[in-house]
Amino acid sequence: MPELLHEIEVRPAFYDVDPMAVVWHGNYVRYFELARAALMEKFNYGYEQMRESGYLWPIVDLRVKYVKPATLNQPLKVRAEITEFESRLRVEYLITSGISGDKVTKGYTLQVAVDAKTMELQYVCPKILWERLGVSP
Amino acid sequence: MPELLHEIEVRPAFYDVDPMAVVWHGNYVRYFELARAALMEKFNYGYEQMRESGYLWPIVDLRVKYVKPATLNQPLKVRAEITEFESRLRVEYLITSGISGDKVTKGYTLQVAVDAKTMELQYVCPKILWERLGVSP
Amino acid sequence: MPELLHEIEVRPAFYDVDPMAVVWHGNYVRYFELARAALMEKFNYGYEQMRESGYLWPIVDLRVKYVKPATLNQPLKVRAEITEFESRLRVEYLITSGISGDKVTKGYTLQVAVDAKTMELQYVCPKILWERLGVSP
Amino acid sequence: MPELLHEIEVRPAFYDVDPMAVVWHGNYVRYFELARAALMEKFNYGYEQMRESGYLWPIVDLRVKYVKPATLNQPLKVRAEITEFESRLRVEYLITSGISGDKVTKGYTLQVAVDAKTMELQYVCPKILWERLGVSP
Repeated sequence: MPELLHEIEVRPAFYDVDPMAVVWHGNYVRYFELARAALMEKFNYGYEQMRESGYLWPIVDLRVKYVKPATLNQPLKVRAEITEFESRLRVEYLITSGISGDKVTKGYTLQVAVDAKTMELQYVCPKILWERLGVSP
Repeated sequence: MPELLHEIEVRPAFYDVDPMAVVWHGNYVRYFELARAALMEKFNYGYEQMRESGYLWPIVDLRVKYVKPATLNQPLKVRAEITEFESRLRVEYLITSGISGDKVTKGYTLQVAVDAKTMELQYVCPKILWERLGVSP
Repeated sequence: MPELLHEIEVRPAFYDVDPMAVVWHGNYVRYFELARAALMEKFNYGYEQMRESGYLWPIVDLRVKYVKPATLNQPLKVRAEITEFESRLRVEYLITSGISGDKVTKGYTLQVAVDAKTMELQYVCPKILWERLGVSP
Repeated sequence: MPELLHEIEVRPAFYDVDPMAVVWHGNYVRYFELARAALMEKFNYGYEQMRESGYLWPIVDLRVKYVKPATLNQPLKVRAEITEFESRLRVEYLITSGISGDKVTKGYTLQVAVDAKTMELQYVCPKILWERLGVSP
């Protein structure tokens, strides 16, 4: 089975930082999305390919745990890893300091497949996902 | 001719404020949009009605002048006024302190009409705009 | 014991909505914050009062469950309720459609108190919180 | 005189794109800021160095002209160039398609120096700016 993970680097921008001089907690959701998008594109199943495949993949659950605050311009690594792909797509995230390696944030998202035409929820992930990931459930 | 203006109130939220403890300059564009959306809805020509009318109205020019910084929770008034509607839609904005009345920010946006089917730029505003505004160019 | 809850109304703005024509999932974190800020201000323990009291209250955990998508301009009610205040501050959120009453999103945040001078984590919520809420742990 | 410019690459993320499937107009202000921050850091006068030098540099004027819409994941180049540094800092921006080279957006920002202690506006840019840029006014 292939490694179902990808890591990107981000540096918090001025507009990401709040009056307490740390990244506003809601902005980590954007960092998660950048890492997940890069991960899914690596498997040729990014946003456009999802649409072409006839499925939408809305996020139905999000969790973020904040361990250490990140600051302006601090180099961060954002790792995204697929840990479930049978009935829903689960991606786990780990954000660490690019310098010390300290854990900054972790979390996960859950996505389900929805038929783009009928808008019907799929209780099993469509085959296209497994093909693109190179896995068998 | 009717008064082509509308005023809303906003209070900067925690996530609007930057490390210098003032509203991040890019966030005023959101305040402008809130006021413009309310203004256009007042004339039954909000986003949905624009789409139904067969036209898109992309913004082609934006200007923001910053006079005084706004701070967390400061009550602000955002006034939007249509000052051109012949060949393009110009909306001017004035943000003032809700308490002192001091000028905080001013600016404008320019929008042009684009035919949603052909994507052709309209060099004269479509009649539907004038009808909704109750004006004649 | 007083009712430790508050409800606000929000309407998703154009910039909140993603290419799938629904509110981008990360933007609900902003709606949660608006409701939590209004709730805490009601008890005279908003952001400024927190700072004055000598404590910071960083968010250490966030959960969002997405039940139904919200769309542009859809009237939403966002209810925030304090459900823990002993060792940490837990706020639970429920977002419902302002028209149908349907559940849209729910979730919670956890905050801990940190001494603003020493930056030491407080394992019990400081007394000031209980005084402001009118509760005894 | 050194070249007072810098270019970065950005790719619009899912959360940058609006229901019309193009980048929401306010988000270009973030792209401008990313390019300006990288430019100023190149001259050792980024946000932290500004603070250390005793000056704040608030933005007092912003202009954005929209030429072509940008779409999800489209590679963009964002060029920032300092074109004034005598009495105020003017940065001009040009965003082009990374593939076709087509112009997407252009604009400028104006910043003035403010003494961080007295909060007095400086009518001439402080010497530290010229030293860092390697210019003489």
